[in-house]
Amino acid sequence: MSGGDGVLRKARPGFRWSDVDLLAYKDEGSAPFKSVSRQTLFGGEGLEGELRYFEIEPSGHSTLERHEHRHAVVILRGRGQCLVGDEILAVAPHDLLAIPSWTWHQFRANAGETLGFLCLVNRNRDKPQLPGEADLTSLRADPAIAAFLDEA
Amino acid sequence: MSGGDGVLRKARPGFRWSDVDLLAYKDEGSAPFKSVSRQTLFGGEGLEGELRYFEIEPSGHSTLERHEHRHAVVILRGRGQCLVGDEILAVAPHDLLAIPSWTWHQFRANAGETLGFLCLVNRNRDKPQLPGEADLTSLRADPAIAAFLDEA
Repeated sequence: MSGGDGVLRKARPGFRWSDVDLLAYKDEGSAPFKSVSRQTLFGGEGLEGELRYFEIEPSGHSTLERHEHRHAVVILRGRGQCLVGDEILAVAPHDLLAIPSWTWHQFRANAGETLGFLCLVNRNRDKPQLPGEADLTSLRADPAIAAFLDEA
Repeated sequence: MSGGDGVLRKARPGFRWSDVDLLAYKDEGSAPFKSVSRQTLFGGEGLEGELRYFEIEPSGHSTLERHEHRHAVVILRGRGQCLVGDEILAVAPHDLLAIPSWTWHQFRANAGETLGFLCLVNRNRDKPQLPGEADLTSLRADPAIAAFLDEA
């Protein structure tokens, strides 16, 4: 029941935490992404939700993907954009994003700032689906989405 | 799929959000507490977790209680203290607190600052238990805890 038992994990500079590992976002080569890290803040026995902190360096982006499970996102640092379905949404600190089931989504740190956010998911969830050629063609039919996906 | 459908809810000044109601922490008279508000940021169908934002004004405190369900807390603003079991822990922005099952806990905004935090719980959870006389006597046997509980 002491802090040392993991009850309290202090914030450290740079959006790191004591006793929380900085992990790769995904296995290299498993899906397209750029400059993203992952820290699991809460999860495991007794909690049906899992709370992760993702950070995207300037010009980086998460994987364009969709899945059945929902994302509940709280932006913690920086500005950027998120594609959700057919909309490109500008996000800033403390904004809330609810990503519905089976909706294509991608975060981009495209405002010259590091973009960091909490993401709540169900502990038991399905694996993400990557877009096929037909999906990409359909998304790219919107010039704004094509430009978003092509940003460096 | 538009922001208007609740996908994006923008942060507003003062830790408020578009389309998020500011609620009483609990029904008045249901349990002892002081100067606490509650906003439910995420919950409902498809999510097994519920993410709430609680805010305690300076000198306020949450209810001293315990329950089977776990709390996963991320401090968002201000400093204060939290009693967890037999420990009084100082908390500051972005600190993480994991409150185990059946552990007495109480937050106090006792540093002259508004204390605000995210709290993740299971959507399906048990109701909190309040301490009886014997529990309070046992907690107050520690002078530091007695002083904590008596703070204005």
